[in-house]
Amino acid sequence: MAGVKIGVVGAGSVAWSSKLIHDLLHTPQLYGSKVYLMDINEERLRLLKGFAEKYKSEVGADYEFVATKSRREAVREADIVINTAMYGGHKYYEEMRRISERHGYYRGVNSTEWNMVSDYHTIWGYYQWKLAMDIALEAEEYAPDAWLIQMANPVFELTTLIAREARVRVIGLCHGHMGYREIARAIGVNPDEVEFEAIGFNHVIWLTKFKQRGEDLYPLVDKWVEEEAEKYWQEWRKTQVNPFDIQMSPAAVDMYRRYGLFPVGDTVRGGTWMYHWNLETKKHWYGPTGGPDSEIGWQIYLAHGEAWLEEIEEAVRSGSPLAPMFPKGLSGETVVPLINSIIHDEPATYQVNVPNLGAIDGLPDNVAVEIPAAVDGKGVKRPQGLKLPGRILRLVLWPRMLRAEMAIEGFLEGGFQVLLDWLMLDPRTKSEKQAEQAWQEILSMPGNEEMKKHYS
Amino acid sequence: MAGVKIGVVGAGSVAWSSKLIHDLLHTPQLYGSKVYLMDINEERLRLLKGFAEKYKSEVGADYEFVATKSRREAVREADIVINTAMYGGHKYYEEMRRISERHGYYRGVNSTEWNMVSDYHTIWGYYQWKLAMDIALEAEEYAPDAWLIQMANPVFELTTLIAREARVRVIGLCHGHMGYREIARAIGVNPDEVEFEAIGFNHVIWLTKFKQRGEDLYPLVDKWVEEEAEKYWQEWRKTQVNPFDIQMSPAAVDMYRRYGLFPVGDTVRGGTWMYHWNLETKKHWYGPTGGPDSEIGWQIYLAHGEAWLEEIEEAVRSGSPLAPMFPKGLSGETVVPLINSIIHDEPATYQVNVPNLGAIDGLPDNVAVEIPAAVDGKGVKRPQGLKLPGRILRLVLWPRMLRAEMAIEGFLEGGFQVLLDWLMLDPRTKSEKQAEQAWQEILSMPGNEEMKKHYS
Repeated sequence: MAGVKIGVVGAGSVAWSSKLIHDLLHTPQLYGSKVYLMDINEERLRLLKGFAEKYKSEVGADYEFVATKSRREAVREADIVINTAMYGGHKYYEEMRRISERHGYYRGVNSTEWNMVSDYHTIWGYYQWKLAMDIALEAEEYAPDAWLIQMANPVFELTTLIAREARVRVIGLCHGHMGYREIARAIGVNPDEVEFEAIGFNHVIWLTKFKQRGEDLYPLVDKWVEEEAEKYWQEWRKTQVNPFDIQMSPAAVDMYRRYGLFPVGDTVRGGTWMYHWNLETKKHWYGPTGGPDSEIGWQIYLAHGEAWLEEIEEAVRSGSPLAPMFPKGLSGETVVPLINSIIHDEPATYQVNVPNLGAIDGLPDNVAVEIPAAVDGKGVKRPQGLKLPGRILRLVLWPRMLRAEMAIEGFLEGGFQVLLDWLMLDPRTKSEKQAEQAWQEILSMPGNEEMKKHYS
Repeated sequence: MAGVKIGVVGAGSVAWSSKLIHDLLHTPQLYGSKVYLMDINEERLRLLKGFAEKYKSEVGADYEFVATKSRREAVREADIVINTAMYGGHKYYEEMRRISERHGYYRGVNSTEWNMVSDYHTIWGYYQWKLAMDIALEAEEYAPDAWLIQMANPVFELTTLIAREARVRVIGLCHGHMGYREIARAIGVNPDEVEFEAIGFNHVIWLTKFKQRGEDLYPLVDKWVEEEAEKYWQEWRKTQVNPFDIQMSPAAVDMYRRYGLFPVGDTVRGGTWMYHWNLETKKHWYGPTGGPDSEIGWQIYLAHGEAWLEEIEEAVRSGSPLAPMFPKGLSGETVVPLINSIIHDEPATYQVNVPNLGAIDGLPDNVAVEIPAAVDGKGVKRPQGLKLPGRILRLVLWPRMLRAEMAIEGFLEGGFQVLLDWLMLDPRTKSEKQAEQAWQEILSMPGNEEMKKHYS
């Protein structure tokens, strides 16, 4: 029996939290623990608490689930704090996007080269960042021995920021690296037999190792690109329904050709503006939905989140067994196994986001990289001196890092200049007046009063 | 008597070399030295040799001047190698600029945020960079104990590149920091009494210290901005004839307001595209000439270089005394005093460009920074931990550094992608087709055959 305290801040995301609860219930090593589910949405909390209790009895697991609206109660003396909170809800960001587009910024001023992900809120994520920092500082004060697991996006920026500005042990987690399994399946290899390494920044990772029984699989990837890609795309263009089905898209293959390594997971959603000028361009590279970050794909994604909510509600209400909602075994999310490795000092390797400190050559120490690393009770043991091609460092990671540094500067120091200069590096900008007016209108939006003050 | 060997590669730039010779002749500590003036332009060499011998007799100085077309002869066993060579002549670059402009890239694809200087050739400087690296590698082989003084632009990129790629002790030199004297004069302070510090990258330096007898002079700058700038600009708009007369321009003051420190020297020529969209914008910020890097200002600059050439020719031919061509004392260029400090182990402080190695906080170690540093026979003693505001680091130096890293990547690794991605970060780009076509036509220009191969 572990008897640890896990505080989950922002547990109201039902799709995600139900998977977390499923994994906890199927991890007997952590039985006896207390799990605080914290959110500001009371209704969601009630639903989740009901779900957790019902599923717990069904499995016969031993946990104490506490639903609370008090963040401090969830954090205080926790061994693990998970931040999965998103400030404001999607409507808030969609409104900023709408204003941006009126000023010529398709998909919003937040979208930039190598970050086209529609809810990876960087330069306009003021409140989201403030929330994440508040949680980190609360952990620093009320749970000084805790590990903070940062799952809320933007994982790259927030892990970097928190590691610099708070005295708390932070690990950023994401599941995008699982995209390597789709690459394996495409080339006819069992994903479970694959040894892989994908490194870079969160959402910008590149396949540096891809092997089966010691044999390099890249030649099979090349063969697929050469002989099968066209046929695959023909079919895919007729049948793509999931906008996230882009791991083997023309965009991914084009990036592979241009930069020399295969892009993994959310990386494919990035790239320069050449993949993203408009819906037509997006369809060319990402299929008929235009990928997850087009105006079409994003609506599908948002609708999908609501469907999960209804399904769980229905399952709890009807009293039917919950297990069939989930695949057998753990969900594949690494957060629960990682917690177990930390709590029970059981070393295992995870894809984590942590300050570089020499892990990847050619990047500063104080920027969060995404790498596979051994984690145990003592923490994260980084590999050292991992290599990426100069092309990827200079043309992808450095530009991406520049955006992170600008957003961090803006968040920490405020002032209008950073917002203006952000858009002066953007090929959508035609004049500084356009940039100024877009930001002025965004800042004047109801709800952005504090943000406006910060950036004035 | 020093008896050292100084090899000057690219001595054919008469305006510059005549000042170098003037300073050498007025530095008796270096008498007895051999000075190799190397260039591929025989006519210029003859002119310079004639000038040097005549001026030497006039002053009664003791030097041996050797004119040579052999780079190796100039470099071999030199104690000091000065690289001041510019590949190709201005016409070559003007042609690339002309092609760029046909594709929508005003002032050329080489111009970017914080490098709008018309002959600071970065991404399109393939041959210039190759020449600089050849000289550095020749010094490595034939003059392993020499100091290489890199004066040919782009000093920022080339000093960085050479320090990384050649085993030679390199110092980059520029005179742009002298702009602090104009600021002093504007606020009514004797420049000779001013203590100043201006740091950053070459051509991107910011006034971090500005004092007179221990008193901070920034309040006087603020007063000037508040009370006198408008009046000054009114007059200046009517009388500006020198396009370089921009140290106190609206651009400089605007940068000061936006970034928090006063920009010094060539820094004022930089900025984001907001100062540079077109001639009209440039005139607004840089006066009626549009500054040195407008189509007007640049023509004035090019014409001025030719005038110097004619003046020296005429002076040598006529037999009239040469001294009156120069102001009393040394020219103000630091290269000769710096050589003397190195050769005679006489410590003094110079504005140099050297790999950071901790000199400025928040910048990588392997990037060349411009700082004041003590130089003596053992080399450069950097100050440590100099501070710049986050705003300048994140919004100015990081974007500028990103461009340097992209250009270095392109030079070392080649391939078309870097050229394309260079323009995908440019607000003048409307489509990747535009970017591709601009580069294709530049690469297909006669004379660019090797460069085309490199970038294919």
